[in-house]
Amino acid sequence: MHPSLLEQIQSPQDLSRLNPNQVAVLADEIRQTLIQTLSKNGGHLSANLGVVELTIALHLCFQSPEDALIWDVSHQSLTHKLLTGRYRDFHTLRRAGGLSSFTNPNESAHDHFFAGHASTSVSSALGIATAKRALGDTHNAVAILGDGAATGGMVYEALNNAGRGGAKMIVVLNDNEMSISKNVGGIPRYLSWARSRPVYRITKRRVENALRRMPLCGDCFAKRVAKIKNFIKRLLTQPTIFEDLGFAYIGPIDGHDINAMCAAFSSAKLIQRPVLVHCCTVKGKGYEHAELSPEAFHGVSCFDIETGEPTSACGSLSEDFGAYMCELAAENKEVCAVTAAMAIGTGLRAFERAYPARLFDVGIAESHAITFAAGLLHAGLRPVAVMYSTFLQRTYDQLLHDAALQNLPLTVCVDRAGFVGQDGATHHGLYDVAFCASIPNVRVYAVASTEELRRRLREAVLQPQNTLTFLRYARGKSVNLPADFNLRGDYAVYGDTSAVYAIVTYGRLTAEAVRAIEQLKLHGTQVKLIKLNCVVPIHAAAVEAVLNCKRVCFFEEGIRTAGAGERFAAMLLQHHFVGAYILHAADGFAPQGSVEELLIAYGLDCGAMCAAFADCE
Amino acid sequence: MHPSLLEQIQSPQDLSRLNPNQVAVLADEIRQTLIQTLSKNGGHLSANLGVVELTIALHLCFQSPEDALIWDVSHQSLTHKLLTGRYRDFHTLRRAGGLSSFTNPNESAHDHFFAGHASTSVSSALGIATAKRALGDTHNAVAILGDGAATGGMVYEALNNAGRGGAKMIVVLNDNEMSISKNVGGIPRYLSWARSRPVYRITKRRVENALRRMPLCGDCFAKRVAKIKNFIKRLLTQPTIFEDLGFAYIGPIDGHDINAMCAAFSSAKLIQRPVLVHCCTVKGKGYEHAELSPEAFHGVSCFDIETGEPTSACGSLSEDFGAYMCELAAENKEVCAVTAAMAIGTGLRAFERAYPARLFDVGIAESHAITFAAGLLHAGLRPVAVMYSTFLQRTYDQLLHDAALQNLPLTVCVDRAGFVGQDGATHHGLYDVAFCASIPNVRVYAVASTEELRRRLREAVLQPQNTLTFLRYARGKSVNLPADFNLRGDYAVYGDTSAVYAIVTYGRLTAEAVRAIEQLKLHGTQVKLIKLNCVVPIHAAAVEAVLNCKRVCFFEEGIRTAGAGERFAAMLLQHHFVGAYILHAADGFAPQGSVEELLIAYGLDCGAMCAAFADCE
Repeated sequence: MHPSLLEQIQSPQDLSRLNPNQVAVLADEIRQTLIQTLSKNGGHLSANLGVVELTIALHLCFQSPEDALIWDVSHQSLTHKLLTGRYRDFHTLRRAGGLSSFTNPNESAHDHFFAGHASTSVSSALGIATAKRALGDTHNAVAILGDGAATGGMVYEALNNAGRGGAKMIVVLNDNEMSISKNVGGIPRYLSWARSRPVYRITKRRVENALRRMPLCGDCFAKRVAKIKNFIKRLLTQPTIFEDLGFAYIGPIDGHDINAMCAAFSSAKLIQRPVLVHCCTVKGKGYEHAELSPEAFHGVSCFDIETGEPTSACGSLSEDFGAYMCELAAENKEVCAVTAAMAIGTGLRAFERAYPARLFDVGIAESHAITFAAGLLHAGLRPVAVMYSTFLQRTYDQLLHDAALQNLPLTVCVDRAGFVGQDGATHHGLYDVAFCASIPNVRVYAVASTEELRRRLREAVLQPQNTLTFLRYARGKSVNLPADFNLRGDYAVYGDTSAVYAIVTYGRLTAEAVRAIEQLKLHGTQVKLIKLNCVVPIHAAAVEAVLNCKRVCFFEEGIRTAGAGERFAAMLLQHHFVGAYILHAADGFAPQGSVEELLIAYGLDCGAMCAAFADCE
Repeated sequence: MHPSLLEQIQSPQDLSRLNPNQVAVLADEIRQTLIQTLSKNGGHLSANLGVVELTIALHLCFQSPEDALIWDVSHQSLTHKLLTGRYRDFHTLRRAGGLSSFTNPNESAHDHFFAGHASTSVSSALGIATAKRALGDTHNAVAILGDGAATGGMVYEALNNAGRGGAKMIVVLNDNEMSISKNVGGIPRYLSWARSRPVYRITKRRVENALRRMPLCGDCFAKRVAKIKNFIKRLLTQPTIFEDLGFAYIGPIDGHDINAMCAAFSSAKLIQRPVLVHCCTVKGKGYEHAELSPEAFHGVSCFDIETGEPTSACGSLSEDFGAYMCELAAENKEVCAVTAAMAIGTGLRAFERAYPARLFDVGIAESHAITFAAGLLHAGLRPVAVMYSTFLQRTYDQLLHDAALQNLPLTVCVDRAGFVGQDGATHHGLYDVAFCASIPNVRVYAVASTEELRRRLREAVLQPQNTLTFLRYARGKSVNLPADFNLRGDYAVYGDTSAVYAIVTYGRLTAEAVRAIEQLKLHGTQVKLIKLNCVVPIHAAAVEAVLNCKRVCFFEEGIRTAGAGERFAAMLLQHHFVGAYILHAADGFAPQGSVEELLIAYGLDCGAMCAAFADCE
């Protein structure tokens, strides 16, 4: 199908020229474009398919970018991108130098923020709404929020603040009964109740009519009825959590009925205080495989459109983690796992099946996850908390205040450490080594291989020290390490220890380094490799192992400032090292691209390692 | 008054031997002890006076420590301390080596966690409750939570999670209509509604009776009544936010009526799922001055019991900050301030009076505060976010993802940076330099004096660069700097630039260093002082200024690992520095004590600086 209508949409204004039939065709074209492109480039298919009509309705009713549409997480913003002049570049989605799969202010004035973490949109939109009011700008600020993100504490902080301040703003709750995986908690259950109600505004009028017509026979009964009326008044004027928080509430609305949504949004625009519009959508709508398995199509790699099957498949350290958790759980009844809506991504699906009562998926609520895990541990269990490096950033204070300070031997597995690839700047796991180092009384292990992960996990869980222990590993496969590599210590030396050139690195880059020293050896340059297993703290002997060197190059798949390479340098200075020390690390916010492309771009690949010693003999 | 009953309470079990009259006397004795001790030692007077009866009731009804009482923030745990064997040591409260004013597991088995940050107790208690259930332990986990902390997002993450999991746990909401300062947001307004209701359980029964007795005359009317009954059922079974989240609800209870609370707690213990007990207390209860001005007595220094006036008073950089914010606001209409329940502590009281519409106090919701401020800025205002260093820890991800990544020129003022004194380990601001350094595209200025604060604040707000800028300053007074000190640059050199000994430092320690180099000069040792104004990034020329030195000592009132001193060392190595480099910094979690005591304990005072060069000539 050629998307002839979509091609003509250069800006949201062009939507107003379409008649309702054309709008329906456009929605179809958008769906086909999403399925075609994401089958090749990967991305968040289910979420984007679910909000096609919702996005069209928003752009019909609001005047972007003067009306600010703030997409929470923004993984569902692809229809928005297609309607705001980015159709021609859409084939570059998630490619190096191409369109981001998240909102990106550098791409378009219609994107207000880089976004990739959940539950921030209401805060951002409230800030915009408040500033607009102060500056006399009557345009709207609209946050579009999934029900999954609604379990995140920031949403409540922001709703609570908005409900008091009273600045006019609109929150669109896109309720698809789903976060990354199945939704958990009281709020989703509450929304389920809210969904089952008749449309609120109609009900309210009907009940008011019923009350008016209610006969009053006898004084005593009248008093009773009056009392009941008061209760009903409370019910009608404060019927939802959102109204308890000070919001007007409209909904539930069918999120695939553009007319119904336009009516709701038009009403919302007239309300001069915060208002929540509750839209119900079907995740994966319009693509059978995604509707049936929305979880599988949350974040997909390439897939076959006919069968819905991924076109590439591979093992990963995440899967290894899940498998070893099952083994440990079988061995010790106290072992359990805590995650925050990342059970599938972190490899815990099999664990969940085998030990459903021992997997605590708290929903999108990373901060709570860490403190909750500390509580489990305090009372005698052996929890392993696991989340992606980028989301661990949300737990800095909980790691410090609720875990490290307590001398609790909590184990935290940090998945997706290092470059994550196509998700780009908001998702790279480049900061955990640096920010964890600033927390006293922690140990951070960089794990490169399946074997290392198994051994470190076993030690951390079954022979715990009184320290907060992190095991961090990259997205993707185990690295192949030489068989004689010493896994046990806090560091390992590979190659000729008398060599006067050295590479120091950790984690996934070890594989690049092993290849580099083999290649350099072929050219007659002896370079030894120091692999840091424990990156916080760094063992003094690892530093001593390079003191004889003329040149030491540290390669770090992580942020330079406050990272391990700088700490290694500080230790070298203490040891009066007089050779050359060159630190290769990630500076600034890294863009999207494949991991291979990013390693090359930042000079962290085998080639760059060889080049760093090209002038040596 | 001699606290003769209190003296006899060695453990909570001793409470059960008292008759009701004695319990009332005990409550009086506790209040007098609190007032007497805190008038000398400082502390959170209002909060502690408010929960005397609540704490007695908890210890009467629960068996601590098997039943875990988890105090949120734990600044209100002093009655708990007095009832758990710590009366004799109570005079050491907040002194170096003495009792902490927060819960401390090293003091007593009745204290389960070190706590000092808000909104964590429900997460901790849920972890304990869940583990107890898994391990077959039928004891209770009880979180005691103020209404102020209820605006924090973690509470909702935890309530949401608890409401689903269904583990038996009890949340006691201590509702005193107050957080650190006046409460803000929809939730407090909601609680105000809840407080005004009749006691829920009684109402429920009455209305059910009324419904049962309601006559049904005619089919049509019967249908209407049936419909209304359904609404009332919803009202009765889901009447509060807490029940929407899956909690049973008991309340409101008079939090100064021990019998009523014991009845409520006894009921709560019988409920085999999460339950919330809503107790209403009066902050400052029993001390007139505190009841009248609970805010002033939130966290007090020494005060005169008769008059309620502080016995020491002094200016502070916080006050200076507030004064300059007023000046900037007068000059530029876009200037506004954002804080998170710290308006008074950060010196914004005058600003609030002068510009009430331009102070955004979001309540205890630090994460939201930063993202909200980024939204304000995006839409054209010039917000200054201000909070204590220790609470800034809760915003790491928002600083990175919602501010720095956006290239927004947000200004964040970091108060209470460095040692805070008597509040101890949970409150020291020792980590911000390290964790902020790991965020790309930021500038962190260490501000030591009133003049510096004024200049940096003006630059950051009125001539902003596209970077997230932090101005950090210590609790307490401006430091007196030599008149010839260069404030403008990223660093300043004081003393003889040809000297071969150097002290490098920043912030408050500059004053110690100035005194040290003067004293060393008197003994014939020329030492120059490099004051870092910008600690992230460190200017290369600041490093070059010490390359001629035989010995460089870096003094850092902050964490060693990943701190500025290590980064300075890494830069020295790049410059092939061959002298001695000695880093003095804070390791581990620092205890409580006066700032002077802590500087001496960590070797960061003038004396330690002199000693570092004592062998030089």
